[in-house]
Amino acid sequence: MPATVKYLLDEEQIPRSWYNLQADLPEPLAPPLHPGTGEPIGPADLEPLFPMALIEQEVSVERYIDIPDPVRDIYRSWRPSPLYRARGLEAKLDTPARIYYKYEGVSPAGSHKVNTSVPQAFYSKEAGISRIATETGAGQWGSAMSYAAALFDLTVKVYMVKVSFNQKPYRRAMMETFGAECVASPSMDTEAGRAILAATPDTSGSLGIAISEAVEDAVHREDTKYALGSVLNHVLLHQTIIGQEAEVQMEMADDYPDIIVGCTGGGSNFAGIAFPFIGKQLRDGPQVEVIAVEPKACPTLTRGRYAYDFGDTAHLTPMVKMHTLGSSFVPLGFHAGGLRYHGMAPLVSHVQELGLLTPRAYHQLECFEAAVTFARAEGIVPAPEASHAIKGGIDEALRCKQDGRSRSILINLSGHGFFDMQAYTDYFGGKLQDGVYDDNELAMALSGLPSVNQA
Amino acid sequence: MPATVKYLLDEEQIPRSWYNLQADLPEPLAPPLHPGTGEPIGPADLEPLFPMALIEQEVSVERYIDIPDPVRDIYRSWRPSPLYRARGLEAKLDTPARIYYKYEGVSPAGSHKVNTSVPQAFYSKEAGISRIATETGAGQWGSAMSYAAALFDLTVKVYMVKVSFNQKPYRRAMMETFGAECVASPSMDTEAGRAILAATPDTSGSLGIAISEAVEDAVHREDTKYALGSVLNHVLLHQTIIGQEAEVQMEMADDYPDIIVGCTGGGSNFAGIAFPFIGKQLRDGPQVEVIAVEPKACPTLTRGRYAYDFGDTAHLTPMVKMHTLGSSFVPLGFHAGGLRYHGMAPLVSHVQELGLLTPRAYHQLECFEAAVTFARAEGIVPAPEASHAIKGGIDEALRCKQDGRSRSILINLSGHGFFDMQAYTDYFGGKLQDGVYDDNELAMALSGLPSVNQA
Repeated sequence: MPATVKYLLDEEQIPRSWYNLQADLPEPLAPPLHPGTGEPIGPADLEPLFPMALIEQEVSVERYIDIPDPVRDIYRSWRPSPLYRARGLEAKLDTPARIYYKYEGVSPAGSHKVNTSVPQAFYSKEAGISRIATETGAGQWGSAMSYAAALFDLTVKVYMVKVSFNQKPYRRAMMETFGAECVASPSMDTEAGRAILAATPDTSGSLGIAISEAVEDAVHREDTKYALGSVLNHVLLHQTIIGQEAEVQMEMADDYPDIIVGCTGGGSNFAGIAFPFIGKQLRDGPQVEVIAVEPKACPTLTRGRYAYDFGDTAHLTPMVKMHTLGSSFVPLGFHAGGLRYHGMAPLVSHVQELGLLTPRAYHQLECFEAAVTFARAEGIVPAPEASHAIKGGIDEALRCKQDGRSRSILINLSGHGFFDMQAYTDYFGGKLQDGVYDDNELAMALSGLPSVNQA
Repeated sequence: MPATVKYLLDEEQIPRSWYNLQADLPEPLAPPLHPGTGEPIGPADLEPLFPMALIEQEVSVERYIDIPDPVRDIYRSWRPSPLYRARGLEAKLDTPARIYYKYEGVSPAGSHKVNTSVPQAFYSKEAGISRIATETGAGQWGSAMSYAAALFDLTVKVYMVKVSFNQKPYRRAMMETFGAECVASPSMDTEAGRAILAATPDTSGSLGIAISEAVEDAVHREDTKYALGSVLNHVLLHQTIIGQEAEVQMEMADDYPDIIVGCTGGGSNFAGIAFPFIGKQLRDGPQVEVIAVEPKACPTLTRGRYAYDFGDTAHLTPMVKMHTLGSSFVPLGFHAGGLRYHGMAPLVSHVQELGLLTPRAYHQLECFEAAVTFARAEGIVPAPEASHAIKGGIDEALRCKQDGRSRSILINLSGHGFFDMQAYTDYFGGKLQDGVYDDNELAMALSGLPSVNQA
């Protein structure tokens, strides 16, 4: 049994600012477009949705943005998060690779999501907002937002995709424990929800529908803003504390990552670990190979189109340029609820277009196999989402073994799997199959991309 | 929103030895008795069950017992655990009390149980054992033992109380993820299990039955030892790292506890936080008020008898002198699976007889109410077991408010509630009632105490 190696920082080493990759990009992001007019939008267009401080962060090209003290104070509840050298896993794989993982599962809601829900709650409170409307898929984001709202005495309404609402009552219970209201989406509480229920009463819902409901809710109430758990620039910005801490911890280990691996759903945990290193490389720092791992059943980066698309089903959100499978795309039968979104963060998509990351797709069974190997070697049960990053890291470590090279691999372990044990039960019971999608459905979804792409 | 205050130690400050309260007791413990002869037993009698190193710890009166380096190395995965000043809770209660909580939920299995499963696995490995048999109620201990066994490449068989096996598949999935075999108890795999199934095929099982099965399993196989997650002296010994760390952390806070509150099932997490402080008091250190909180539905300390009793249903274990409700006692309808045991650790029982602790019993609904208050103030969802300690701490804080006294309260938050969200769902749904037992059943269970008590 090799000794555990943990690199732990002092609280004073929690970063004092978030890192903004937009400052170092060789080409700027394509602007978001108004959902109605197709024209580029400005900060004022976003004001019904977000507090102005977050809108400013969304469009900022400043390299560093100060983290407010009250946010850092709450970060201290679980940050700095530990970086581990995976000595147990290295031994089990018999690889010359040096494997590190940054573990975000130590947070109160069990994943990296609270890194952004806390500042979002803070800026909302500062702006005099008393209520937040948001959506959640499997429930990670909903519980992270509920946690942060409880600390700032904000009311929260979470629109939870109906299939998850019914299948994952425990995430809902967690939101309620934190004082949030959680309803199944589509609901009768919004026009968007009522329209969809009228047309398809038996629908199991989707993230796109839930976003439509939350956006509509926020737009119609003075006291309410909308909050999103991934995709947007300011969300990715908040996650960069992960990579910034990891930089210092890798220094403690007297090492630097040759390879960084993260899983990508909306893109935020991936951006969190990778962007500070990519930025360094762009500023003449060391080269780093960055691997974005996604599920084969929802292959946004590997099979999607880089085009303007809506973030939601009812087309209430601005259009953003991103890798997308089309807003009507529905992946089937796979368990990593956090990786089911049809689009990818514009910043992550842009980084891929610039050739700064390599996308890779895996089936879910091989990811669960990797997760079990990891759990037995390292003692942590990974979330199904994070298992994709682990699978990517293990493959790189095995490649090192084959090549006889000792490279340094940094994995983002974005959350634990304690709320996902049904998926593990199904896996051990032989009830899981690899997730799928239909090629015709994908083609259809892509053909429905907004006409602005032809302009 | 008051700022979070966390007292975090350096890894080097993980204690180098466990603290043994037996060294400081004014009167020694009553000896365990042989289940057949009723005569005091010696180390050799325990050898079929435990590795000799643990038997030596069980009977040792040395004050400090060295923690082996490989155990400390694994402790480093999550230790030192944080101590928090509950500023959010203090504000919500508007109390002059200073409330601290030591949080053991940061461990890989989510509770304090791994503090002892790791050394138990280590000493078993050292003794050339390749397999461990154990039981589990709600699954906390089973998953902690499975975690430790995976790290030392040991095989584990867990006999899980049938009602929990069926109701809590997620704890079972966690054990399987770590590579353990988990069967419903009573099982057809042991004589004890077969006998009970023949007599009562529909039984939902009990901890006493599961212990009988695991003990029988271990006694009949050369390669196997038994492991217990609470009650025994060596288990309580391993938990004292909690209190030892808390001592240093309270010093960092420039404070000392006036009151220590822990929940008691078998007694191990309570002993872990309280014994180092009780020992200090016995050695002329500061006085401390120690409160042991138990459920009213299983009131071992407040309604049990201090007498010799068996640890299991089939009466295979030695008899120990403890507060007991009788080995046939069955509490009904309450959700803190870790607090359902009929007996109490002999050391905790002895400490109560010496007047060094005050027992207190609460109903479960008031404990859930306290847990929800805590979650919304501090951002952590407590395990139902730990909610008893929180309820006790809140009551003390409110007493301080009434009296206008600023006292210092230290609570042991032994684990998170991520595997217990069904109980929260039931609580919010109004489906929970206060647990009960029948007075006649209690009298009957107590009348069945072994005859050695009349000797």
